[in-house]
Amino acid sequence: MTELISADLIGSLNEQTRPAHEDDFGALGRQLARRGIDIEAQVARAMQWSVAIPTWGVGTGGTRFARFPGPGEPRGIHDKLADCGVIQQLTRGTRTVSPHFPWDEVSDYNALRQEAAQFGLGFDAVNSNTFQDQIDQTHSYKYGSLANASAATRAQAVAHNIRCIEIGKQLGAQAITVWIGDGTNFPGQQSLTRMYENYLSAMQDIYAALPADWSMFIEHKMYEPAFYSTVISDWGSSLIAAQTLGHKAKCLVDLGHHAPNVNIEQIVARLIHVGKLAGFHFNDSKYGDDDLDSGSVDPFRLFLVFNELVDAEQRGARDFRPAYMIDQSHNVTDPIESLMCSAIEIARARVQASLVDRKALAEAQEANDVLGAHRQLKAAFITDVSPILAEARRRQGGAHDPVAAYRAAAYRAQVAKDRPAIRGASSGIV
Amino acid sequence: MTELISADLIGSLNEQTRPAHEDDFGALGRQLARRGIDIEAQVARAMQWSVAIPTWGVGTGGTRFARFPGPGEPRGIHDKLADCGVIQQLTRGTRTVSPHFPWDEVSDYNALRQEAAQFGLGFDAVNSNTFQDQIDQTHSYKYGSLANASAATRAQAVAHNIRCIEIGKQLGAQAITVWIGDGTNFPGQQSLTRMYENYLSAMQDIYAALPADWSMFIEHKMYEPAFYSTVISDWGSSLIAAQTLGHKAKCLVDLGHHAPNVNIEQIVARLIHVGKLAGFHFNDSKYGDDDLDSGSVDPFRLFLVFNELVDAEQRGARDFRPAYMIDQSHNVTDPIESLMCSAIEIARARVQASLVDRKALAEAQEANDVLGAHRQLKAAFITDVSPILAEARRRQGGAHDPVAAYRAAAYRAQVAKDRPAIRGASSGIV
Amino acid sequence: MTELISADLIGSLNEQTRPAHEDDFGALGRQLARRGIDIEAQVARAMQWSVAIPTWGVGTGGTRFARFPGPGEPRGIHDKLADCGVIQQLTRGTRTVSPHFPWDEVSDYNALRQEAAQFGLGFDAVNSNTFQDQIDQTHSYKYGSLANASAATRAQAVAHNIRCIEIGKQLGAQAITVWIGDGTNFPGQQSLTRMYENYLSAMQDIYAALPADWSMFIEHKMYEPAFYSTVISDWGSSLIAAQTLGHKAKCLVDLGHHAPNVNIEQIVARLIHVGKLAGFHFNDSKYGDDDLDSGSVDPFRLFLVFNELVDAEQRGARDFRPAYMIDQSHNVTDPIESLMCSAIEIARARVQASLVDRKALAEAQEANDVLGAHRQLKAAFITDVSPILAEARRRQGGAHDPVAAYRAAAYRAQVAKDRPAIRGASSGIV
Amino acid sequence: MTELISADLIGSLNEQTRPAHEDDFGALGRQLARRGIDIEAQVARAMQWSVAIPTWGVGTGGTRFARFPGPGEPRGIHDKLADCGVIQQLTRGTRTVSPHFPWDEVSDYNALRQEAAQFGLGFDAVNSNTFQDQIDQTHSYKYGSLANASAATRAQAVAHNIRCIEIGKQLGAQAITVWIGDGTNFPGQQSLTRMYENYLSAMQDIYAALPADWSMFIEHKMYEPAFYSTVISDWGSSLIAAQTLGHKAKCLVDLGHHAPNVNIEQIVARLIHVGKLAGFHFNDSKYGDDDLDSGSVDPFRLFLVFNELVDAEQRGARDFRPAYMIDQSHNVTDPIESLMCSAIEIARARVQASLVDRKALAEAQEANDVLGAHRQLKAAFITDVSPILAEARRRQGGAHDPVAAYRAAAYRAQVAKDRPAIRGASSGIV
Repeated sequence: MTELISADLIGSLNEQTRPAHEDDFGALGRQLARRGIDIEAQVARAMQWSVAIPTWGVGTGGTRFARFPGPGEPRGIHDKLADCGVIQQLTRGTRTVSPHFPWDEVSDYNALRQEAAQFGLGFDAVNSNTFQDQIDQTHSYKYGSLANASAATRAQAVAHNIRCIEIGKQLGAQAITVWIGDGTNFPGQQSLTRMYENYLSAMQDIYAALPADWSMFIEHKMYEPAFYSTVISDWGSSLIAAQTLGHKAKCLVDLGHHAPNVNIEQIVARLIHVGKLAGFHFNDSKYGDDDLDSGSVDPFRLFLVFNELVDAEQRGARDFRPAYMIDQSHNVTDPIESLMCSAIEIARARVQASLVDRKALAEAQEANDVLGAHRQLKAAFITDVSPILAEARRRQGGAHDPVAAYRAAAYRAQVAKDRPAIRGASSGIV
Repeated sequence: MTELISADLIGSLNEQTRPAHEDDFGALGRQLARRGIDIEAQVARAMQWSVAIPTWGVGTGGTRFARFPGPGEPRGIHDKLADCGVIQQLTRGTRTVSPHFPWDEVSDYNALRQEAAQFGLGFDAVNSNTFQDQIDQTHSYKYGSLANASAATRAQAVAHNIRCIEIGKQLGAQAITVWIGDGTNFPGQQSLTRMYENYLSAMQDIYAALPADWSMFIEHKMYEPAFYSTVISDWGSSLIAAQTLGHKAKCLVDLGHHAPNVNIEQIVARLIHVGKLAGFHFNDSKYGDDDLDSGSVDPFRLFLVFNELVDAEQRGARDFRPAYMIDQSHNVTDPIESLMCSAIEIARARVQASLVDRKALAEAQEANDVLGAHRQLKAAFITDVSPILAEARRRQGGAHDPVAAYRAAAYRAQVAKDRPAIRGASSGIV
Repeated sequence: MTELISADLIGSLNEQTRPAHEDDFGALGRQLARRGIDIEAQVARAMQWSVAIPTWGVGTGGTRFARFPGPGEPRGIHDKLADCGVIQQLTRGTRTVSPHFPWDEVSDYNALRQEAAQFGLGFDAVNSNTFQDQIDQTHSYKYGSLANASAATRAQAVAHNIRCIEIGKQLGAQAITVWIGDGTNFPGQQSLTRMYENYLSAMQDIYAALPADWSMFIEHKMYEPAFYSTVISDWGSSLIAAQTLGHKAKCLVDLGHHAPNVNIEQIVARLIHVGKLAGFHFNDSKYGDDDLDSGSVDPFRLFLVFNELVDAEQRGARDFRPAYMIDQSHNVTDPIESLMCSAIEIARARVQASLVDRKALAEAQEANDVLGAHRQLKAAFITDVSPILAEARRRQGGAHDPVAAYRAAAYRAQVAKDRPAIRGASSGIV
Repeated sequence: MTELISADLIGSLNEQTRPAHEDDFGALGRQLARRGIDIEAQVARAMQWSVAIPTWGVGTGGTRFARFPGPGEPRGIHDKLADCGVIQQLTRGTRTVSPHFPWDEVSDYNALRQEAAQFGLGFDAVNSNTFQDQIDQTHSYKYGSLANASAATRAQAVAHNIRCIEIGKQLGAQAITVWIGDGTNFPGQQSLTRMYENYLSAMQDIYAALPADWSMFIEHKMYEPAFYSTVISDWGSSLIAAQTLGHKAKCLVDLGHHAPNVNIEQIVARLIHVGKLAGFHFNDSKYGDDDLDSGSVDPFRLFLVFNELVDAEQRGARDFRPAYMIDQSHNVTDPIESLMCSAIEIARARVQASLVDRKALAEAQEANDVLGAHRQLKAAFITDVSPILAEARRRQGGAHDPVAAYRAAAYRAQVAKDRPAIRGASSGIV
């Protein structure tokens, strides 16, 4: 295993924070014991958790207006794997990466798999890109890809997705996530129905190429890059597609891809009900697909999503095996720091949701003790579970405070020596 | 047939506006002919159209803050039928009414059916009310009806729905619309999943009581009266329910029941795609379920919905037999005037959508001539089809200008003599 | 002082929870000490805090669809004062009530003031009601009150507001809150400009009647009961009005009265910047003016609002003396329980915001250490400050757990013996 | 004058459509005469109208995901002027262009001014760009420009704005539009108040450099590129800034820069009320700042905005001299076609609003004849004023159907010969 951050440094920093941590951990343990909860079971549970990091997430993101790169930007997939390795080493809860093609193309995928393993990383769902044109591409995606009016363009997009599956097999992945930007900017630009039929037909071609043990994740998004209609704009459109395709197809929930005010946790509950929840792209949002850091704007919403997930897990909902990935755009922070904090905030919401007294909750619900039921959730949410998260990291070799350790290690300054600075106007997520 | 408004008055008013009408109608006919459209075919088509009036719509609506009744409020179902008769007599495009129980309960439904027939009216889908408590009710709907945690309350709500079906059979209706306000005001108040399961189970009991030739319309609504979660909050939840219940169950679209910014015409297209579009509750909205007059705030959205409907009709989409009803709350206008204008605006959108050159549209779409395709829709929308609508009314005995005729007839002042004035603070839709 | 809940009961319940409380309080004190914060100072600060209870808040609320009263509903202002007294006795952070006229009219306001004092309550801002018609009213508010097209109606509404000020003077209040529902349901219904001019003119008449030491709070609301336009729909319209009227006029922020996605804490910051922040109506919302319990849906937003308030307080912003009131609609809970919990959640957000290390925050901001700055806020928010709140209550004679004490005291069952049950369909906030 | 499109071609196309146009124009004239409106006066009024084209608008736009250029993209300001010249030649209602710096920098601005004049174009408000970094820039705008925590960065942004004013003076412009993307992506990232104070201070420095006859247009935007807070996020923040700066500073309204559901026409009315309406950036939107073609998604909203403008014009509102510009992102259409259509749709809304019978409207409003008032607006909106617009174009040398003439002239294919194709992945608005 490659040691990207000195284990000695981590150990010595943890030693400095040990007395405070032990005091907090002890007090929380006593409080939880009074509430009938074993803190050790919670630590063990936290240690099992992992969320995938998307390879593109370690690069600085941008908007259509501008992109402002930071120092030491990863030059390609190899640098990206190292950056993901740092996140995993310090947080110990991000054991896989999710690659994106053609961005992450290499000549030898077995070598790439071994390279990742050196950082303690495996490969999660592969992602196909048919929302941008590549230099050598025959047909443009300007007017769509899988839902394009042109059969030739659709076929090209299908072929790219099948190629992603082939690569994914070599990397040990078992799922492909299909997100397309297809849609329209004008009423009438395309037939809403014909676009959907074209999409379903193309997806069936991709589905046919899925290995037996693979899943297909369908990702819906309300808008952007299309601004009047989007083919898979909501979970209803995603569900019909998943039903049309078959049992390997499920619906992926990105927390930022919904209309304003929508109750996302109920969508999660509905997809669990029909056995079609593929998993999550975690982020936070205030306005649209803002791709902000998870839990940074509405941490209670994140908790309520996990409340559904823990509930489904504990009652043994059928076909319930969601995949978890962070999907954020880090425009003004060091992506490694943002991803570490986000991984922690996601884990925090899961531990908090695990503290809910589900028996008392069900009793209050059954008795229509509205406030009593609500207070069960709030009691879990206001609990500061930081000591559980820190302890779970420490026991696996991670840091009490990953950001402090990362800064102390000066990793960014180190890699910036080899990675050239990027200057000038650019924009978007290229 | 009872003559609520003097046919002589209508005729004499039409005679006054005849020269102007004929000039406009002639000019439009020549323009449409140049565009390859036969105006007579459009008049004939407009004459076939009808939209149902809800019996509760002829009473003044309100908000939780207040309700300000007007003069001559209908005292019960008999007055409501007369008011609906006026709307039909003047507009000739509202041939059915949709009743609501227990609000419209009478002792003899056959007599009621004949009474309606005297006004040229039949009965459309029946509506059940399990969102309010009645004086003699055993179980309260405070915490829900079909999705209540209590089996006894659910059974009571099921029984009421079955009773509505029984009444509907006597009235000649062939569908029941089920809308419930069930939901929660607090995270945790109820299990989102258990509420949905309870709802589905109760709906199956109602579904089992449906006659062979009946349909069940499931109406979704994002929020209100519940303000954190609603059991059937979106078309996805409605679709799963309709799929679970069977082929008689379909999804009803109320234009005001969606999240901000949602593309409603695409939802319509999706429901047509899966053969599950039940029909519409027409109104307009700016903020939420505002229940404003159809076409008063966003007439182009109404046109785009009809663009999907006419498209589906012309290509012969399977299982496509939508039901149409107006569902508005008339808080500051004379409900009869609002309903007449709304019926006209809905018919306007349909005629405009019928003018779209679908061959040229499809060609532009196929060629990705984005602006060319869009302009096909806009060309239809900016056409002033008022002369077609007026001619269709006139040929069936209606008025060129229904509001002018209604005001000239002084119907409201007449009925106000018999219908007592309502004073003082009250609120809501009671 | 009238003892509504037995002090002995409170004491004995506190004694039972004392060991757990002391363990938690001790641990939190040690943690805060490590963060450089004196827990005793925080307890003292929490003890100074108070938020007003609106008299109408102790009755069960409703929607336009229905209202489902609970047992023991207050029959009038005297019962309401008692219910508010219970809230204050148990939470010790709600020392004033805010009355509403004509709802709370009595013949002797001095007696009412003494009656309130017996419960430890004073009177906060008076509220005028010109959004409903009263039985004996000359002019209807159907088409508006202060912004009505009719000068006579405007004058009637002005007179009512001036009467509210007169009553308020007798009660010891020093402010009037003016919220009107005036607006339109149709484009064109009124001139948007003339309505505003009418409003400003009427408000000037009310302003002229303000005593020297009084303030006028202008409350904006995006929509409802008007559904196309509202005269004072946003803080911009409110600000111009406050500037037009004079220094006694300020802008009140109700957390549920904004467009979707709006950053409310920045509006608070802007109003502080111009010295025009009147204060708050606290509640929570997911869709519109849902009037849900404070902190029940988005507790981080509540924290962020208090982050601005504490910041303004600590840097001594000019003209910064906000008034605080809870304004919720309790449709499915016991209003007393909801108000106690809300008072606690509001106090929680304030204590959390008080823990922010503002020096470290400013340094991180100055250095553009984006994540570092954000983590300062999150560190404060995730702190479980319940022990500080409980201690502040206990030291003033309140309960560790107000809801538990309230339930143990069976107050609702007691008063339900004297207060008649309400049955049957009703709706709204009457 | 340079003839970009053959005047002969335009004349011959107009000749072909003349009979149909004359029939439609005649019929509309007769109808309007019956309504008391002189069509010739409307044609004359339409001929006076002009809206500015932004130089960047003739290039293909994009999103953060991708940008798909079309053939014949303008290579720089000279090509852009030619493209704008085509728009003006065919529509005759776009007599000015609005430049953007540093994008449009040249060495000789007098020459540029003459070059534009050759196309019949003058220069409108200049636009400064401090939301992107330029290659040679000392300080980055990553964390903001005019509101940056760093005084040096603010000074650099101020200097750029002053330089834009200097350039503008040479071009004959009389206004500068200041839009900044400054804001935050995280709660706590910056002090909301300090950012605003920094902004105001920097703006005062720019304001001090304004010539006596210049105006400063402040443009607010809810979000993007910042996704948690934006310094000038709403018209309230813009208004305070304009008040702080002085009478030359006014508030610009971009139709896509508001929260969901907001009533924009009322904001327009409020800014007119306080004499602070700077003008407009026209576009349409469904979700956010979609920058769609004007009138393509909600044409009635555009009409309602012009209803306020025409009303203000006719009653002689003080300080009412709005500037008009189109601001759209043309991602999937030929920008020239989109801009021509948008210019027509904007002119259409203005002519429709000019048809409103304001006397009858005011009477209905005064009488609270709600529906009657509303119908006055709808009567104007449903009028097909295309013949007036076509006639106004024709009389000035433009085309009956500008898009048809543009396509017939094959302008794009011509210029594509000289303008190199752009290939490969790129994104945004660079």
